[in-house]
Amino acid sequence: MNNNDIFKYVDHTKLSATATSDEILTLCGEAVKYGTASVCIPPCYIELAKKEYPSLNICTVIGFPLGYCTTETKVFETKDAVTKGADEIDMVINVGMVKNKQYDKVLEEIKAVKEACGGKLLKVIIEACYLTDDEKVMLCKLVTEAKAEYIKTSTGFGTGGATAEDIIIFKNNIGENVKMKAAGGIRTKEDMEKFIELSCSRIGTSGAVKALID
Amino acid sequence: MNNNDIFKYVDHTKLSATATSDEILTLCGEAVKYGTASVCIPPCYIELAKKEYPSLNICTVIGFPLGYCTTETKVFETKDAVTKGADEIDMVINVGMVKNKQYDKVLEEIKAVKEACGGKLLKVIIEACYLTDDEKVMLCKLVTEAKAEYIKTSTGFGTGGATAEDIIIFKNNIGENVKMKAAGGIRTKEDMEKFIELSCSRIGTSGAVKALID
Repeated sequence: MNNNDIFKYVDHTKLSATATSDEILTLCGEAVKYGTASVCIPPCYIELAKKEYPSLNICTVIGFPLGYCTTETKVFETKDAVTKGADEIDMVINVGMVKNKQYDKVLEEIKAVKEACGGKLLKVIIEACYLTDDEKVMLCKLVTEAKAEYIKTSTGFGTGGATAEDIIIFKNNIGENVKMKAAGGIRTKEDMEKFIELSCSRIGTSGAVKALID
Repeated sequence: MNNNDIFKYVDHTKLSATATSDEILTLCGEAVKYGTASVCIPPCYIELAKKEYPSLNICTVIGFPLGYCTTETKVFETKDAVTKGADEIDMVINVGMVKNKQYDKVLEEIKAVKEACGGKLLKVIIEACYLTDDEKVMLCKLVTEAKAEYIKTSTGFGTGGATAEDIIIFKNNIGENVKMKAAGGIRTKEDMEKFIELSCSRIGTSGAVKALID
């Protein structure tokens, strides 16, 4: 694939605990220069990015990366992010609730965050590295039922990242209105091409410029 | 030291993304049996622990572990936790703000969370592994000024945990009303004794039962 075409799939990501304002602004500049789908940044930097790059598509993370804050907090954090200028919301599910088999609560939480998005795009991170295949299939159904726009493999902070196997499970089990985002451990052009060929609409990576330009 | 005496210092901790209700209840039972200072658990399990163990000292985590959610979200999450029954709040500072040298904002945030605690005990996690010694000294001053009860070394999810060197920096730079909690990578009886001898009032560990009983 042409590198310019790959960039269109990339959520250009900087989510390290130590990320500075300067690093976030550099990321935003790169996103504009290379035409990425979005920047994916910590909630505390949404306002800065929106102010300096008002036309940029800004994605942020909710309940990230462990997913076990309360539903009330996820809803508040989502509304706060949208108010501050976020265009896309990547939320982490509560994995413990999945392990407890409280699927109704998992669904309720995704629906509550979707409502809090107020029309902004929602991606649901299922953190596949911690789930069995049966649980992944269940999550495909719940994400579809909650009418989220995307299902996303991983936070990048768990014990594993995106895999082709998980994307194939997604393809076979999500509804037709749900798109797929692969994230976690994607660092080479070959990785990106692989997930695009598997029909992913977005690739989350902090390494796009290094892989495609440097 | 006598094992029973060591347990009195322990925040008995379970903060993995996959923690189940059963695991949290087991943790609470152990806390009662061995007389730990508290249980330290995800926000989503506060209500369960409070219901089943109403007299147990319940500690939870805020903005955990990356610390870069907004101040508004940390304040909301803290109030939500206190409402649900939390007795102690372990918050993570915004490390990016430290790197940006926005010390006024760091202080403001700790003060805002302290106020949201409504009298409950606040521990401020500075995530020392990402900080220079000068930044650690600055944080000692900010935590003292914000009137938080504790300064805490680490989340256990960063690139490093508690060290004796950091505790010595704390001792030399905190005000007399601030206590110290060592956490992150503490797994043996020797580790626990070392930090208690260095005047830590709390030890955060998920390994106390394994180290002291099994």
